[in-house]
Amino acid sequence: MSRSVLTIDGLQYSNWSREIFEQMREGGVDAVHATLVYHENCRETLLRFGEWQRRFEAYGDLIMPVRDPEDIELARASGRVGVFFGAQNCSPIEDDIDLVAIMRRLGLMIMQLTYNNQSLLACGCYESEDSGITRFGRQAIREMNRVGMLIDMSHSAERSTLEAVELSERPVIISHANPASFHPAKRNKSDRVLKAIAESGGLLGFSVYPFHLKNGPDCTLDDFCGMVADAAELMGMDHIGLGTDLCQGQPESVLTWMRNGRWSKSMDYGEGNAGNAGWPQPLSWFRDNRDFPAIIEGLKQKGFGQDDIEKIMGRNWLQQLINGTRPMAASAA
Amino acid sequence: MSRSVLTIDGLQYSNWSREIFEQMREGGVDAVHATLVYHENCRETLLRFGEWQRRFEAYGDLIMPVRDPEDIELARASGRVGVFFGAQNCSPIEDDIDLVAIMRRLGLMIMQLTYNNQSLLACGCYESEDSGITRFGRQAIREMNRVGMLIDMSHSAERSTLEAVELSERPVIISHANPASFHPAKRNKSDRVLKAIAESGGLLGFSVYPFHLKNGPDCTLDDFCGMVADAAELMGMDHIGLGTDLCQGQPESVLTWMRNGRWSKSMDYGEGNAGNAGWPQPLSWFRDNRDFPAIIEGLKQKGFGQDDIEKIMGRNWLQQLINGTRPMAASAA
Repeated sequence: MSRSVLTIDGLQYSNWSREIFEQMREGGVDAVHATLVYHENCRETLLRFGEWQRRFEAYGDLIMPVRDPEDIELARASGRVGVFFGAQNCSPIEDDIDLVAIMRRLGLMIMQLTYNNQSLLACGCYESEDSGITRFGRQAIREMNRVGMLIDMSHSAERSTLEAVELSERPVIISHANPASFHPAKRNKSDRVLKAIAESGGLLGFSVYPFHLKNGPDCTLDDFCGMVADAAELMGMDHIGLGTDLCQGQPESVLTWMRNGRWSKSMDYGEGNAGNAGWPQPLSWFRDNRDFPAIIEGLKQKGFGQDDIEKIMGRNWLQQLINGTRPMAASAA
Repeated sequence: MSRSVLTIDGLQYSNWSREIFEQMREGGVDAVHATLVYHENCRETLLRFGEWQRRFEAYGDLIMPVRDPEDIELARASGRVGVFFGAQNCSPIEDDIDLVAIMRRLGLMIMQLTYNNQSLLACGCYESEDSGITRFGRQAIREMNRVGMLIDMSHSAERSTLEAVELSERPVIISHANPASFHPAKRNKSDRVLKAIAESGGLLGFSVYPFHLKNGPDCTLDDFCGMVADAAELMGMDHIGLGTDLCQGQPESVLTWMRNGRWSKSMDYGEGNAGNAGWPQPLSWFRDNRDFPAIIEGLKQKGFGQDDIEKIMGRNWLQQLINGTRPMAASAA
């Protein structure tokens, strides 16, 4: 029954393997927004695309690339997981506006303007001051709009996010975060931001990363679904989805890379601290890719109807891809 | 009348501008194999793709990208020049086999395995000894076959070329050169090579670069068309086309870049010499992109029928693209 609900996870950076792809199928995942890079530059981003090309060859029975939103239905029909790509930072385009269209052609459907820190485009949520979208950032937003690359502000700061919504002619998304009203983490978003995202036509993907949740690893499924209900109230039923931020099977070195990249000489612990430096304990009700049906069940218990559950689990994400990843008319992208 | 003959030029590296694109239309050119790079590495190749993206935006009334061979008919129907890309060297893939599929996805339809010198894949026609296709070269040929990237041996040495034909499961082409029997330049090809190319299902594109022609700039149109007739005899009517090697409007610095790249401290004069270092004088009957109808006329005078003229002027090139640039079945390229 739950298997029949279109399920799209709006962000993962798992330690991709046959076992994980099999668990995704077991959990009913039809498509996933896979993070391609965190801090990789242009050439390094091509290395990551190359690795995925090999995965698509090696695991063609379990996964396939999503080049177009329609491919998600194809993946579903063939019992495979469709994979679409996003960058958590703007590092792939370096300082070169032409790389937006080039990365889009290679399959980068989503890009964050910044990852925690100030970038060439915008300000991240860990900086003390946010001076908004930069000169290059305005050009990049226009170009992302033109070629059909979704603007993702998950790790961005408040003012930059609001300005991006203002500047963008197409919806702006937050692929993975939660409302700050539920849990006041730096990475979670104010009601003002969430309303702006919804008004832009965008979407918030709910994270199950314990640092983004009330009571951390002890957050209950009921509390999580209560948060979803509150966000639905605030943003409307068409503007919410999943973005688990699941990093299944990743070693701590990957966490260190996410947090420190190449920019920090001293250890930056991100949402953790020296005494709690590693991956957080997972939730009891969402350990890995097999547990998506638990969320469906939780939403039912919370009183969501079938239609709303389908929107949250996948239909809203599909609509974002349909609305946001086509080149604009008369574009020679 | 000549305007109605599908015309595809199998190699140019002109100093692209509105004026040149207009002259291409005036000369009836429906599509062109544009050299994207000579010695550029991966990142630099993306700069060149970026420049072409801007050209497609700026000159959308005159040119369009050929992503698929069918686009050539679309270009023709809309009165524009279709542009498809090739690399004159394997430098865009550096030492990374995954970059073959990535470059193909970006629109690189053709790649030479080497440009005059030894490369990581094969030997060039200016080396004193040719040890054939390298270990990496064998992998690259297999991958180019898989993703549908045409193997071009224009600047390769004899043994490497014959081995490439042997190793490749798909046709191998020589986009721009002439028979050595017509003019014995290092860049021109032996009958043995030309027969192997034809037997592979490939094609020879005739060059009008004076260094590749008998009597250089004084080569007559009648002599040129005689060479075409002899090659047709040797290779068959389906395996010949044009590859002018026209570098219209390029400054001498570009010639120096082609010849010297970054590899030579002392000046390498290529087919010229210290006393004749610059661009050769053009042919009187082929000065620039407006002169393709002269070739049609010359072929008529030589006794070629309409069908054969259409094959030589464009239909054979179109067939090469159809046969050679589709991914192989069951490929996840």
